Amino acid sequence: MSRHPFDRRDFLKTAVASTAAVTVLPQAALGWSGKASGSHIETESVPGRAPYSGPPRLRFAVIGINHPHIDGQIGAVQRGGGELASVYAAEPELLAEFTKRYPGVRVARGEDEILQDGSIQLVLSSIIPDQRAPLGVRVMQHGKDYMADKPGITTLEQLAEVRRVQAQTNRIYSILYSERHENRATVRAGELAKAGAIGKVVQTIGMGPHRISLNARPPWFWVKPRFGGILCDIGSHQVDQFLYFTGSTQGEVVASQVGNFKFSQYATFEDFGDMLLRGDKGTGYIRNDWYTPDGLSTWGDGRLTILGTEGYMEVRKNNDIGRAPGGSHLYLVDQKETRYIDCSQQELPYGRLLVDDVLNRTETSMPQAHVLLATELALKAEAQATKLTFQA
Amino acid sequence: MSRHPFDRRDFLKTAVASTAAVTVLPQAALGWSGKASGSHIETESVPGRAPYSGPPRLRFAVIGINHPHIDGQIGAVQRGGGELASVYAAEPELLAEFTKRYPGVRVARGEDEILQDGSIQLVLSSIIPDQRAPLGVRVMQHGKDYMADKPGITTLEQLAEVRRVQAQTNRIYSILYSERHENRATVRAGELAKAGAIGKVVQTIGMGPHRISLNARPPWFWVKPRFGGILCDIGSHQVDQFLYFTGSTQGEVVASQVGNFKFSQYATFEDFGDMLLRGDKGTGYIRNDWYTPDGLSTWGDGRLTILGTEGYMEVRKNNDIGRAPGGSHLYLVDQKETRYIDCSQQELPYGRLLVDDVLNRTETSMPQAHVLLATELALKAEAQATKLTFQA
Repeated sequence: MSRHPFDRRDFLKTAVASTAAVTVLPQAALGWSGKASGSHIETESVPGRAPYSGPPRLRFAVIGINHPHIDGQIGAVQRGGGELASVYAAEPELLAEFTKRYPGVRVARGEDEILQDGSIQLVLSSIIPDQRAPLGVRVMQHGKDYMADKPGITTLEQLAEVRRVQAQTNRIYSILYSERHENRATVRAGELAKAGAIGKVVQTIGMGPHRISLNARPPWFWVKPRFGGILCDIGSHQVDQFLYFTGSTQGEVVASQVGNFKFSQYATFEDFGDMLLRGDKGTGYIRNDWYTPDGLSTWGDGRLTILGTEGYMEVRKNNDIGRAPGGSHLYLVDQKETRYIDCSQQELPYGRLLVDDVLNRTETSMPQAHVLLATELALKAEAQATKLTFQA
Repeated sequence: MSRHPFDRRDFLKTAVASTAAVTVLPQAALGWSGKASGSHIETESVPGRAPYSGPPRLRFAVIGINHPHIDGQIGAVQRGGGELASVYAAEPELLAEFTKRYPGVRVARGEDEILQDGSIQLVLSSIIPDQRAPLGVRVMQHGKDYMADKPGITTLEQLAEVRRVQAQTNRIYSILYSERHENRATVRAGELAKAGAIGKVVQTIGMGPHRISLNARPPWFWVKPRFGGILCDIGSHQVDQFLYFTGSTQGEVVASQVGNFKFSQYATFEDFGDMLLRGDKGTGYIRNDWYTPDGLSTWGDGRLTILGTEGYMEVRKNNDIGRAPGGSHLYLVDQKETRYIDCSQQELPYGRLLVDDVLNRTETSMPQAHVLLATELALKAEAQATKLTFQA
């Protein structure tokens, strides 16, 4: 633990490296000091964990690669000891790019070749969102576990079918809620919240802004029946976090709204949405939009604020606006002090735990009920949403 | 305009003032540089405005000083050219402290002496909240204008009476929503939003956390009928900002909730509340709480996020967590860049404009309809709020 706020450390490194004096600055000069109690900023580093390095623990395949999130999904399972064995995608151009990135992978002639392959225990997919649930159902019916990109399910009817087949087959239907599982500061915040660092968690606010990248989007991106609506598509991330941080295992949608204020050339697109949620252990508010301006250094200034009776945490997920590039910034204020927590070494345990779950038939990466409740609330919020139309 | 992020500037001042090298650092070394577009942080300073210095423009009085906010109220009118003439308060001990702070003020023998004083044009009050509206009604009925601390009205019945008498007398019933009018960064954000700096404003999020200061509170603080509930008491600030920044002149409460999770020894107190609002020009979410932990350097990490179709602003009202003490921090991200805007010289025009309004019978400080609509929505949110009771 030191008192170097990281931005000043960066500053020292990049700006005045040639000035010897800075290396002997007293510690106190580097910390801001104000009133007596809780006035300085502690920077705390989280210890890391060595990545898995041994023989492959299982073989997995990929079916459908329409969203580049597939790389994060694969990376998570590989870090957990999984071996990428084969891939199938209907689009030859996507497949050509994929095999360049993963040169050792075998290309299957069709989905069925993978589903029939007894050596494959787990299937990953970032196929077009409305096809994720039907594919997952087929995967489970073939005795394999499944991990989808989010949104993992786009309608309440699909959800019912997933629930039915999951219960019947006892396979895993996981959804990589990457804004928690792939964000080091959010993972660390979760450990701290569970350890009681901010008392009882009363509420969460999740903001998920995204850059539209107008020219980089495939046609299906703009069509609501294909992506499920903004609260389904983006919002399921924040619903996952709301449930996880409050510890809720039940929840309801108090209110929800969607609108399309900027991209009205796409009739069914939604560029804004929000929802108010209530769980059995806390409440939460979620806001999503597609307005990230070009002047931001990253795709979205994602934030999570976790309010507890004895303190609060703020996660600045993808950048620390006006301060530093790079993501995973965690601030914690408790009854004693204000801390910046350096999460750069924090392990992302989801992939490792999912491999454990596949091998051991456990639910350590995420309870199955949680995976589906997060999506259920997002789908209900979408279905119930008031359509906003403001005056110009 | 320069590229010195203020924290680094502070650092330079306090830590390496003796190192001559830092004064000749190239500009580029002081800005963070990442990708080509919009990657650096501009720090922009807002020019100031000379305070009024001339003969008094009007004489004003104070009736009721139960909350120390009265000092901010007096300061605003004094900066606008008002002369504090007289005071009345029922509590001798509060009066004794007050006359120490304002030695020139005449102490009236009773409220009526002030109400009958023809030289007084404006009355200010921070009397116990549930007495503010009845007092304001009497003030208006005596032909004077009125400015209350917030909450300026604690029930919908009081509001109806204020509306009736205000229309009848054509006097001003103002409420100092200090988290906008007394916060330089929020004032500046308002100017920028009105100038179209972030396109069309779609939504605002206002977070108003407060420190409980358990031992410093008078008995009335804990009794809901006296303070009106958390959404009335604190929330009216953020409702004001929601209406102002979206430009809404109509609004409705979509949903609201209150709870008391930490201070259950006070049966009617509320330590948490939130509301979702919809206006004719935008939507807004508001969260209030009394959980500010002792490890924060100020009474509350108030935030306002203004989301526009072409950019967004974040106001860190009272401190910049983990970065610097002091308030009024404004960040703006637009299609071009990310800017930190130094608002330390920004004028706070409310008092000056209120004095104008008293003299000219105008509504430049705040439209009368806006003052009362902000309070109406807060009161409705409070009245409709679902009482939250989570499992332990």
